[in-house]
Amino acid sequence: MDIPIVSIVGKSDSGKTTLLEKIISELVKRGWRVATIKHNLHGFDIDHEGKDSWRHKKAGASTTVVYSPRQLALIQDIDKDYTFADIRDNYIRNTDIILTEGYKDNPFPKIEVFRKEMRRDLLFKKKDNLLAVAADTKLNIDVPCFDINDAKGIADLIENQFLKNKPKENPV
Amino acid sequence: MDIPIVSIVGKSDSGKTTLLEKIISELVKRGWRVATIKHNLHGFDIDHEGKDSWRHKKAGASTTVVYSPRQLALIQDIDKDYTFADIRDNYIRNTDIILTEGYKDNPFPKIEVFRKEMRRDLLFKKKDNLLAVAADTKLNIDVPCFDINDAKGIADLIENQFLKNKPKENPV
Repeated sequence: MDIPIVSIVGKSDSGKTTLLEKIISELVKRGWRVATIKHNLHGFDIDHEGKDSWRHKKAGASTTVVYSPRQLALIQDIDKDYTFADIRDNYIRNTDIILTEGYKDNPFPKIEVFRKEMRRDLLFKKKDNLLAVAADTKLNIDVPCFDINDAKGIADLIENQFLKNKPKENPV
Repeated sequence: MDIPIVSIVGKSDSGKTTLLEKIISELVKRGWRVATIKHNLHGFDIDHEGKDSWRHKKAGASTTVVYSPRQLALIQDIDKDYTFADIRDNYIRNTDIILTEGYKDNPFPKIEVFRKEMRRDLLFKKKDNLLAVAADTKLNIDVPCFDINDAKGIADLIENQFLKNKPKENPV
């Protein structure tokens, strides 16, 4: 069965990464193996200038892997804008749940971060697979509305919907 | 067929990365798709503090992928010290040749970088699958000895031994 994907969506600076950090911590604390995918349309900056891996890549390697006994990093040229499903199917294993950030137009279940001072309308509706909202105000909507800091409540929702029948491997 | 692996080996500060850069450039110029693998026993430092991907990983994600339409980076916890063959089989695709650095004890063909001021003996012998030496002096040995800057000659050797029957995909 495919690893489930839940997307954290919202306007820029709504606090997506902060919420995501809290949900990751909460799910990991409960023993789940969490992967994340971040889509940056305009590129990203990952390695440090002058490091060997940086030098390999700059010299023209299309793929560079650097690894130790504890961690591995792969940097790879790609030739199209992959979907989250492509990334899941090609790069992610040994994971119970994938949380994503960025790339708004995706078919996966979404949790939208909403701040009242940013804009009145939500980006998504229930028909867009909006699962819940995390907001700094109470919204009268047809999906669950969590407090923006309620990582426990959101983790409960994710667990109930996507993880309840999976055995945990490493409860901590 | 497995993607061939050639290891650039040598003492610390012998100039492995510099030679590797030149060989990568030369092979890429000839139209080959090159991947590199760097093994660091003591860990490595790849992402930038404060970046979203760094925050995801720090919050406990065991795998984090960040990607744009042109490049992808994956950072992943691993639970053992993989061999180069493990890395090749699990992470590298669409590649004609893999060049590696670090991890001296490996069974793959090796090119040893040698500088006369560093130490008298070579680390490897022909029986260890030593393919050639790149040195700043002439050595009287039973494998080809290239000048330490002769990336073209070394690329010819690699091409003849590992790539000659492969079709090039994107000559540039």
